[in-house]
Amino acid sequence: MQVEVMEQYEELLAKVRHHLEAEDDEGLLALLLTLRPADVAQMLAELPEGQPRGKVLSLLEPVAAARVIEESILDVQRDLLRQMSAERLHQVLDRMSQDDLADLLGALPAADARALLELIPEDAAAIRQLLRYDPDTAGGIMTPEVVRLRETQTAAEALATIRQAAPDAETVYYLYVTDRSGRLTGVVSLRQLVIADPQARVADLMDRNVVSVPVYMDQEEVARVLERYGLLALPVVNDRNILLGVVTVDDVIDVLQEEATEDIHRLSATEPLEQPYLQTSFLSLVRARVLWLLVLFALQSITITILNHYQAALETVITLALFIPVVTGTAGNAGGQAATLVIRAMAVGELQFSDFLRVLARETSVGLTLGAVMSAVALARASLLGTPLEIGMTVALTVVLVVFVASVGGALLPLCIRRLRLDPAVASSPLITTLADASGLIIYFTVAGWILGIRT
Amino acid sequence: MQVEVMEQYEELLAKVRHHLEAEDDEGLLALLLTLRPADVAQMLAELPEGQPRGKVLSLLEPVAAARVIEESILDVQRDLLRQMSAERLHQVLDRMSQDDLADLLGALPAADARALLELIPEDAAAIRQLLRYDPDTAGGIMTPEVVRLRETQTAAEALATIRQAAPDAETVYYLYVTDRSGRLTGVVSLRQLVIADPQARVADLMDRNVVSVPVYMDQEEVARVLERYGLLALPVVNDRNILLGVVTVDDVIDVLQEEATEDIHRLSATEPLEQPYLQTSFLSLVRARVLWLLVLFALQSITITILNHYQAALETVITLALFIPVVTGTAGNAGGQAATLVIRAMAVGELQFSDFLRVLARETSVGLTLGAVMSAVALARASLLGTPLEIGMTVALTVVLVVFVASVGGALLPLCIRRLRLDPAVASSPLITTLADASGLIIYFTVAGWILGIRT
Repeated sequence: MQVEVMEQYEELLAKVRHHLEAEDDEGLLALLLTLRPADVAQMLAELPEGQPRGKVLSLLEPVAAARVIEESILDVQRDLLRQMSAERLHQVLDRMSQDDLADLLGALPAADARALLELIPEDAAAIRQLLRYDPDTAGGIMTPEVVRLRETQTAAEALATIRQAAPDAETVYYLYVTDRSGRLTGVVSLRQLVIADPQARVADLMDRNVVSVPVYMDQEEVARVLERYGLLALPVVNDRNILLGVVTVDDVIDVLQEEATEDIHRLSATEPLEQPYLQTSFLSLVRARVLWLLVLFALQSITITILNHYQAALETVITLALFIPVVTGTAGNAGGQAATLVIRAMAVGELQFSDFLRVLARETSVGLTLGAVMSAVALARASLLGTPLEIGMTVALTVVLVVFVASVGGALLPLCIRRLRLDPAVASSPLITTLADASGLIIYFTVAGWILGIRT
Repeated sequence: MQVEVMEQYEELLAKVRHHLEAEDDEGLLALLLTLRPADVAQMLAELPEGQPRGKVLSLLEPVAAARVIEESILDVQRDLLRQMSAERLHQVLDRMSQDDLADLLGALPAADARALLELIPEDAAAIRQLLRYDPDTAGGIMTPEVVRLRETQTAAEALATIRQAAPDAETVYYLYVTDRSGRLTGVVSLRQLVIADPQARVADLMDRNVVSVPVYMDQEEVARVLERYGLLALPVVNDRNILLGVVTVDDVIDVLQEEATEDIHRLSATEPLEQPYLQTSFLSLVRARVLWLLVLFALQSITITILNHYQAALETVITLALFIPVVTGTAGNAGGQAATLVIRAMAVGELQFSDFLRVLARETSVGLTLGAVMSAVALARASLLGTPLEIGMTVALTVVLVVFVASVGGALLPLCIRRLRLDPAVASSPLITTLADASGLIIYFTVAGWILGIRT
């Protein structure tokens, strides 16, 4: 399917370019009206910076333009803002949802953000407040635009409140009930209000056991709560239980995708990219990768010292050198598997430090079994090559030990890193691989010392 | 936060165990009523199989029991079903949502599934139909329980329809409008119906440009469509545009998490686990890992042949052996970074095969830059060690070439694999690492031949 969608995009882009060149505003607008905001946003990202993008956006009504800006990536947003007059900016920004607007302003230089805020004095206070929250917390992803009901209202009165407020409130599928001080006391769904007897009291319809999250909760944890209970939105409260805003399921999907991308990048020893790969600048790409390559290189340099230490043994039995990549590679692969399984299980909340002993037990048995299988194969491979039996035995015994150590170490290291309240994903496959290389070599030459009776 | 939540769980479990031992059904039920279905499900998973779990579930009303079963993992579901009488089974299964029930029955032996279906004759036809769809497609994750409106209805009539149907329909926030043949013609939100003039026609309120997905669309693609447009549900249609069911946002979140987990597992050369790590059996864990370890070992064995080929050179300059792990390790790390960035960008739809040349251009410049930096560090490290200058130069030049080749190769290989319509995540870091090992060694000894003037 995706391929088809993408082919349609190429066609769409060609049409837009054609209208732009022919200065056919009517045709362009007619085309735009058939598209959804996310599609226009993607199309704008493919157009050259500056005038062409500004031209397309200028054809849209302020509310449609606001939706397109909300769906655009940061670079395009900046570009589009630069090309609008103060009056148009006022119209468009005013129609953006406050959480998206706060995200955008938070990413701009402070002076630019201040200038834009002056254009929308009505929203400025709410947005300044939003900007005070850490962007990776419930406060950073919530919208303060939320419909508040009172327990004393009837279902009919509640629906009237919703009719008045709805065009502005981002989510009206769950209605939160607050007391006079603004404290959250319950939740009622729009569905319940519609189904209920119009004279029924909100107090009798609402669920008092409402799941809420504190404003400082990490966004990943917020996402997990919403996912766990299958909700469409979560109310955000401060430490006095006062309702501050609401996090909606679409924000949570973004968070989950973002966090999965971060974990995947970290697992390959790359600093997570903030923009899509093709939009990331050359320098940012280098920066995201070079630091970890250097750290791993420094760690890997230990292997030079180790091999230097065993140089005499290597000179005595040069055949030992042939198996170095196989030993280090197998150790790295086994360690990477174990580390990744544990890191992902922690990320989705299946595993925590208290499971240490269970993980140790599993990886001990799994690691020994995998090691035994690999070892048999290694022995067979060595004898196929006509390697002397003692060297084959050395490699085989090394492989058992190395797979075992790498599996157990690879699984437990992320657990320990999490215990230290660091991101376990930094225990990336490359880090484990590098550590496995060093320990693999030490095991290899120690075993060689035993079996071949050489001084190591 | 998570740590706190988990500590509460331990407490909760202790309480449940206490009530069970004291046979205090009243206390246990009172406790259960304060919990949400997902919490009860997790708690049941921690209890021993058999009687204790059955006891807890038996205290709940059928509708509450149905919700708990829906939220449970497969092993627990099976265990719970085994302990219910035919009458209780009828009551509980009847109240489960049809998509969850189909998932459960699809995972049971055919004879068991048939026996259970006989208990719920009213739903059997719909569920048999659901079981015919591939579980990884729109048809496999949709629910057929959906409220259908007619264009000729007024808003007031539509709300009356919803009142009647709502207790059974899983989602009523988007109402789909169909014609007499069941073809999808539009969508209207519950919010719009509530806000609208009660006499307004559905035909005038609805959005005719409704986004729908075909029943055979892959679930990952379905998830991406819903995510892209920020929707709460997506209607599923057949090739005659007849409305068959609806996929809801909570199903999509599960799909996105599942797919991210699969990608992460594949990236570490592990077959994706189907159950949580701690619930996966010893044999399944070994099976998921051993195959790839063997494949990679077989590939890695090439390095033995390569080193065997260069054995004379190694004997001449034994110092060359010291840098083998650094060369292969750095190549593997650089290749793994590039591969992972490209694989994730493809998974979230940012990149496709048509971007081949752009990726090639980026990785060429990034790879050469990273290589140059690493090379300078390698040279410095070698001279610190007192290695002869020619060997330092050999290592330095090797590192530039190896980082460059691994970056470009690591980025392009997943693109090519995708082009062959295979999952690009099989181009895992370990696979790239293994390939990088082999090419790294060839580059190393070739460069050594040039600079040291030895025969290789």
